[in-house]
Amino acid sequence: MPRLTFEDFKPGTAMTYGRYVVTLDEIRAYASEYDPQPMHLDAEAAHRSLLGGLAASGWHSCCMMMRMLTDGFLSKTSCMGAPGVDEVRWLKPVYPGDVLSMRHTVVSARASQSKPDRGFVSFHFEMLNQNGDVVLDQRNAIMFGLRDKGAEA
Amino acid sequence: MPRLTFEDFKPGTAMTYGRYVVTLDEIRAYASEYDPQPMHLDAEAAHRSLLGGLAASGWHSCCMMMRMLTDGFLSKTSCMGAPGVDEVRWLKPVYPGDVLSMRHTVVSARASQSKPDRGFVSFHFEMLNQNGDVVLDQRNAIMFGLRDKGAEA
Repeated sequence: MPRLTFEDFKPGTAMTYGRYVVTLDEIRAYASEYDPQPMHLDAEAAHRSLLGGLAASGWHSCCMMMRMLTDGFLSKTSCMGAPGVDEVRWLKPVYPGDVLSMRHTVVSARASQSKPDRGFVSFHFEMLNQNGDVVLDQRNAIMFGLRDKGAEA
Repeated sequence: MPRLTFEDFKPGTAMTYGRYVVTLDEIRAYASEYDPQPMHLDAEAAHRSLLGGLAASGWHSCCMMMRMLTDGFLSKTSCMGAPGVDEVRWLKPVYPGDVLSMRHTVVSARASQSKPDRGFVSFHFEMLNQNGDVVLDQRNAIMFGLRDKGAEA
């Protein structure tokens, strides 16, 4: 299957992919390493917090999103990386047992002015749980190689 | 030592903290779990990429920042969580052997209109390497309890 390159991303087009089963062990392992706040490690503290129960760190949610994004999307493209993130909204807690998936929409696309072999595509990413609730809403631009300029297709 | 509450965050005030030694093992372990793109796992692919060598996933950089933020700052405050992130810029690659630290500035602070026990403080966070280069620039708002409304101080 040919890889997707910059030319393939048309504003308004959407894609769904991914399945990520969230476990208590992973929530605690991530929090122990990167976000050891009591609300992500201790059930009692979590119940007293705004999360209402032990839930994933918001940054951990971003990481789970990135795994689905890599496996289900970027690995099939001429992705060259990303300069950053324009916005993240942690809309609902991510709990143990949740089953997550991804949906994205192409917002806009522009060829690079300075580097003719690449372009930037802006996406609206949504991570959903098993109830169809959007738990994470994220916007960022990703660089892709142009097929016409030699990106492997 | 009393914890910092909403009332303590004055726009313009700055703080520095943290020390995080980046290792090749951690870069590969993170990438294997959350961002398995060749440029974060394979030295050859990394050299051909814009990173110029094996470097941490951008999301991994955010995680390392969060660890320093938790240990050096949030654990000493009445932090109640955060609604999201306003902007992340991955300005330079983070390589094995880098020694990272944090600097932040309070941008603005506003009491919640709907919940009188808390307020939102907007920060500009910068993660620096051992050369003083800013490798990650991040802006977000964090919720803090008010001392005057019962937050543990």
